[in-house]
Amino acid sequence: MAVRLKDIARDLGISTVTVSKVLRGNSDVGDKTRARVLKRMKELNYQPNMLARGLASGKTYTVGLVVPDLVHPFFAEFAKSLSGELRKTHRALLLASSEEDPVIEMQEIRTLLQRGVDVLIIASCQAVLKNFYELGDNRTPYLLFDRNFPHLAANFIGNDDVVVGEMATRHLIDLGRTRIAHIGARYSSPAFDRLRGYRNALAAAGLPADEDLVVTRERVEEAGDLVGNAMMRDLLKLKPRPDAVFCYNDTTAIGAIEAVLEAGLRVPEDVAIIGCGNLRYAAYLKVPLSAIDQNTTELGKRAAQVAVELAEKPQAELKCIMIPPKLVARESTVGKRRKRTPLNA
Amino acid sequence: MAVRLKDIARDLGISTVTVSKVLRGNSDVGDKTRARVLKRMKELNYQPNMLARGLASGKTYTVGLVVPDLVHPFFAEFAKSLSGELRKTHRALLLASSEEDPVIEMQEIRTLLQRGVDVLIIASCQAVLKNFYELGDNRTPYLLFDRNFPHLAANFIGNDDVVVGEMATRHLIDLGRTRIAHIGARYSSPAFDRLRGYRNALAAAGLPADEDLVVTRERVEEAGDLVGNAMMRDLLKLKPRPDAVFCYNDTTAIGAIEAVLEAGLRVPEDVAIIGCGNLRYAAYLKVPLSAIDQNTTELGKRAAQVAVELAEKPQAELKCIMIPPKLVARESTVGKRRKRTPLNA
Repeated sequence: MAVRLKDIARDLGISTVTVSKVLRGNSDVGDKTRARVLKRMKELNYQPNMLARGLASGKTYTVGLVVPDLVHPFFAEFAKSLSGELRKTHRALLLASSEEDPVIEMQEIRTLLQRGVDVLIIASCQAVLKNFYELGDNRTPYLLFDRNFPHLAANFIGNDDVVVGEMATRHLIDLGRTRIAHIGARYSSPAFDRLRGYRNALAAAGLPADEDLVVTRERVEEAGDLVGNAMMRDLLKLKPRPDAVFCYNDTTAIGAIEAVLEAGLRVPEDVAIIGCGNLRYAAYLKVPLSAIDQNTTELGKRAAQVAVELAEKPQAELKCIMIPPKLVARESTVGKRRKRTPLNA
Repeated sequence: MAVRLKDIARDLGISTVTVSKVLRGNSDVGDKTRARVLKRMKELNYQPNMLARGLASGKTYTVGLVVPDLVHPFFAEFAKSLSGELRKTHRALLLASSEEDPVIEMQEIRTLLQRGVDVLIIASCQAVLKNFYELGDNRTPYLLFDRNFPHLAANFIGNDDVVVGEMATRHLIDLGRTRIAHIGARYSSPAFDRLRGYRNALAAAGLPADEDLVVTRERVEEAGDLVGNAMMRDLLKLKPRPDAVFCYNDTTAIGAIEAVLEAGLRVPEDVAIIGCGNLRYAAYLKVPLSAIDQNTTELGKRAAQVAVELAEKPQAELKCIMIPPKLVARESTVGKRRKRTPLNA
């Protein structure tokens, strides 16, 4: 059984109210009594009940996080970094996965809100989100992560995905590629903005924007490798075929590389491929993968800081934090000779 | 502001006690009043306060999970499967990472217990754990996952790691390898048992157990690739060098393959390598990786079921659940011709 306040009171022959006052740091308890109570709490390894404490303060000291897929390296790295930073402030992370399903996402958000998190962080898979309170209550502060909603005035942390798209595409252009395709996602701000960045870079280089070279799909996270493979097969049917591809994320890039190799072509000689995310094992892949690194660890750290600020001051000014991405060039774009040279953009 | 019971009471001109009785399903409220209260709750989208509810029932409807590394594919897959299964019972997952540090693990466990989880699931990185209550309280039921402690009578879910070691080693023996090394971990039941399985298989085949061929390290999770690389370099200095290696997990196997290739040797022709875990992208690696699949999704599902049982009946009989592993043979052991043929053990 857990030690309760009344056990301590009984042991010392004093009232529960006095013990409770000591616990709350109330000053109208004599020094001698206070010392006896603290000594006994230590002896019995007394742990205050956080539920009761939360009820009194209205805080739960938990942060909720909803991501599309827990195993996806980008979201796993983010959750790890976030949880490590929250640990320093004695806060815990309540984690939920939406499985890229908008309906499951709404359920998970409701569950977290009913449970009472101090702040909610969401990489939402909703196609449209005009009013966040469609999803939840109207008092828990929330922070959008990775996916922003242009018409929603909300706290946001992520990368500038236009820059991500420009950086990846410019890298392919700098390598002399001229027929550059994009394997993209749908209905999310990174999807729209990476595509915009891709088009910006082509325009800046005076390259034509051939709409046949842009293919997009939904659900590019968990089964991204299979989706990337299928879309690359489609692109390889084009005449002339693309000589480079900027993929929405690393998982679609892994699938795209597989499709190129299966077609008997070479990466990067015939088709150069770049992803986004820079997953932990990118260097160990069949063709070590070039990628835009989103600085996921920094994203997690900063998200934790914003979450703590929001928990303490829910009505603070809206924050929009963009972490700068960087290019990591490996064999899938620059070939074997220059492999694994991280280039700063 | 959130809708409170007293808002509903005021709107309907009845007492808060009556509203509360309706919420708790108390029968001494007239049908007409009950209907009015429920209608108003729906109109206002009233969400019961889970904190208050938890305080009344003594339950939090949360399960705590502590793993060594959130990004490690094995633990991420487990957490994903566990959280999906818990969702069905309206329970949430509180997730913490110990960063493979026994001191952080103890902090995280204490934080979760103080917060009040109904059940704790732990893949512990403690070297010795004779009494779980050294770590926490003595009332929260807990379930050890992946790592068992022989001298502790506790609920456990994982694989039979002796079988894992035997299966991996026998696969290498069946391929005609005779000088089989083991890159292992330390101080954990999977470490000891996989090593035992490795020795059993060698003995059963009449192969000598050369102690030079067994190398072990701590902290084989997060930086497993670097550790595996370093240990493989050591093994390659032996004369004669090993012709096969059973690695503790997939990450050490990835590093070991890298070391073999860096030495100008071939996988599997010169050195066959098998890992354990069967990570999501194993087929896309430089040398597609053979591995013992731990059936992580099933582990997560069954762990959720046990957690719910423990939450409802903390004093139930101790459970020890072993999920059967299976062999997945890819290029790193069987070469290109027979790649990606899953073999059931």
